[in-house]
Amino acid sequence: MASLILSIDAMGGDAAPTVVLDGLKLFAARRSNVLFEVHGRAEDVTAGLESRGLMDRCTIMHHDDVVSMSEKPSAALRRAKTTSMWGAVQAVKAGRAGAAVSAGNTGALMAFAMMSLRKMEGVHRPAMTAIWPTIEGRSVVLDVGANLDADSDQLVTFAIMGEAYARAVTGKSKPSIGLLNIGSEEDKGRDTLKLAAERLREPELGLNFRGYVEGNDIAMGAVDVVVTDGFTGNVALKTAEGTARLVASYVREALTSGVISKMGAALASSGLKRLREKMDPSNVNGGVLLGLNGVVVKSHGGTDAEGYATAVNLAADLAASRYMEEVAAGLRRDSVEVSVSEVTE
Amino acid sequence: MASLILSIDAMGGDAAPTVVLDGLKLFAARRSNVLFEVHGRAEDVTAGLESRGLMDRCTIMHHDDVVSMSEKPSAALRRAKTTSMWGAVQAVKAGRAGAAVSAGNTGALMAFAMMSLRKMEGVHRPAMTAIWPTIEGRSVVLDVGANLDADSDQLVTFAIMGEAYARAVTGKSKPSIGLLNIGSEEDKGRDTLKLAAERLREPELGLNFRGYVEGNDIAMGAVDVVVTDGFTGNVALKTAEGTARLVASYVREALTSGVISKMGAALASSGLKRLREKMDPSNVNGGVLLGLNGVVVKSHGGTDAEGYATAVNLAADLAASRYMEEVAAGLRRDSVEVSVSEVTE
Repeated sequence: MASLILSIDAMGGDAAPTVVLDGLKLFAARRSNVLFEVHGRAEDVTAGLESRGLMDRCTIMHHDDVVSMSEKPSAALRRAKTTSMWGAVQAVKAGRAGAAVSAGNTGALMAFAMMSLRKMEGVHRPAMTAIWPTIEGRSVVLDVGANLDADSDQLVTFAIMGEAYARAVTGKSKPSIGLLNIGSEEDKGRDTLKLAAERLREPELGLNFRGYVEGNDIAMGAVDVVVTDGFTGNVALKTAEGTARLVASYVREALTSGVISKMGAALASSGLKRLREKMDPSNVNGGVLLGLNGVVVKSHGGTDAEGYATAVNLAADLAASRYMEEVAAGLRRDSVEVSVSEVTE
Repeated sequence: MASLILSIDAMGGDAAPTVVLDGLKLFAARRSNVLFEVHGRAEDVTAGLESRGLMDRCTIMHHDDVVSMSEKPSAALRRAKTTSMWGAVQAVKAGRAGAAVSAGNTGALMAFAMMSLRKMEGVHRPAMTAIWPTIEGRSVVLDVGANLDADSDQLVTFAIMGEAYARAVTGKSKPSIGLLNIGSEEDKGRDTLKLAAERLREPELGLNFRGYVEGNDIAMGAVDVVVTDGFTGNVALKTAEGTARLVASYVREALTSGVISKMGAALASSGLKRLREKMDPSNVNGGVLLGLNGVVVKSHGGTDAEGYATAVNLAADLAASRYMEEVAAGLRRDSVEVSVSEVTE
């Protein structure tokens, strides 16, 4: 079987390229048949790849320039073509790589991916995903911030893309879909949501649509795919991050609040270690801008090597899946369905 | 000093009237100079008040009818005047009670409160508050679901009401205010938010406005008052509840996952007890529909006695504060400011 090739922006992230190369090493040890096209300044990455024993699985692609983490996307776009980030994305466009990974500037990466890969036919607005830990395992939430808003057509597109993505990520054959709302009653919520719900129920789309879900249903794993607009999704994601951090601080305080509690915590350390692992955001690192002609995975800029390896693993899973064809097929069903209803009206 | 009188809907809540009466008893033991007007079926509450030794601080107001938890607000409105919930709200309207408390049907309570107390002058849309635990203590978030949307004028009104409310609840003289957005940069987000931010910065309003905050800033306690529309606020609140429940399940699992972890947990029990107390939603029970001519506190329907006592305590704090006058003064500053800008345009 031919090896999969992933393109890596070695220069993106708060601690690039060190964390990137450490993450690659972790991933490489776990999956043997993946090769890497590593984009960055040759002088910054060559020694690091050598010392980690990765040279025989890597091709180094030199770029003089680096997009900084704080740069405005518009500024980065003007000199895109000299940067490692652009190089990594272009490798997907050119068909050399099955997917690209970058932990760099989010806005710039989205802009580069849009410009290089272009939107799939039938997609008006790409959507950013998040993988969300739940009591049942994990779910996909989208859009978590690629757009400020979404109309009902866009929400339907998000559902189609999210379903194919969840299938690739979770392995479930028919992921369930919910529409984020306030109150789960049929008649509640904005008109946009009611229209989208009506569309998502239509049998022609072939979706496993479960209706409305509320904020608390996300972490309960009520559905595999939670569909919402980019504003609401981003607020929900960051609110959950803040809450998890708050509760973690409570736990820390509870278990260090006296000699006896500390002894108890020491005894319970194996359980608490698993707790830390579960709470570790690196387990769910990796967002994908869905709806483009190619896969670009955005790693969190501040992630550690383990988190970076998670993002690379996500890229490999997607590249090896039928996700792109499935999205295309879903969008075709969506557009056929629209045409029919237009004719009969 | 004259006693404060609170009116209580004894029949609202999943386990009414038992939890209501237990909560009243807890509260009554803590604050001596508060009396209660207890609205409900006399046959259902009299013996309970007697057995709890509360009769000398209560006046029982009999109502034949009860609003059920699952009833549609429109149906409840049609027969409002025979119900205990209506009676409790009307006691505020009539000036006999300083505030009302109900753990009953949320939609019905909001509708009754709007119909009986009416909106304050200058308020187009009332807003529902939540008290949010943070690393710094607690913050106020509004609107958490009274409306589906909010324009920039309404967000400004929410900020004025939220500030006065936070002052009454937290005791801070100049609560800080943030506008919930995605990204904290000036130029990010919806136009509605940009307009609202511009207004909130105007010195005439006299607000301690700190600009945009993101979802993760809420639990970090970045500001005392988080202003948002009812859809986003409701999703954020419920997402936080779900996340807290998820993390609590992880903690439970970690500390019961083997004999040694269990022993550790037993040793750490005093710390873990404080953790449970901190995580207990009854600590922050009580939402208020701001913007009416009177205070009605909504308790969670499924709360326990401790949670109900928290909601009664919130009602007592608000009734004893200058919150209503302060909101009125803030709204006057807002309307003056609008008139001036209209003239100069």
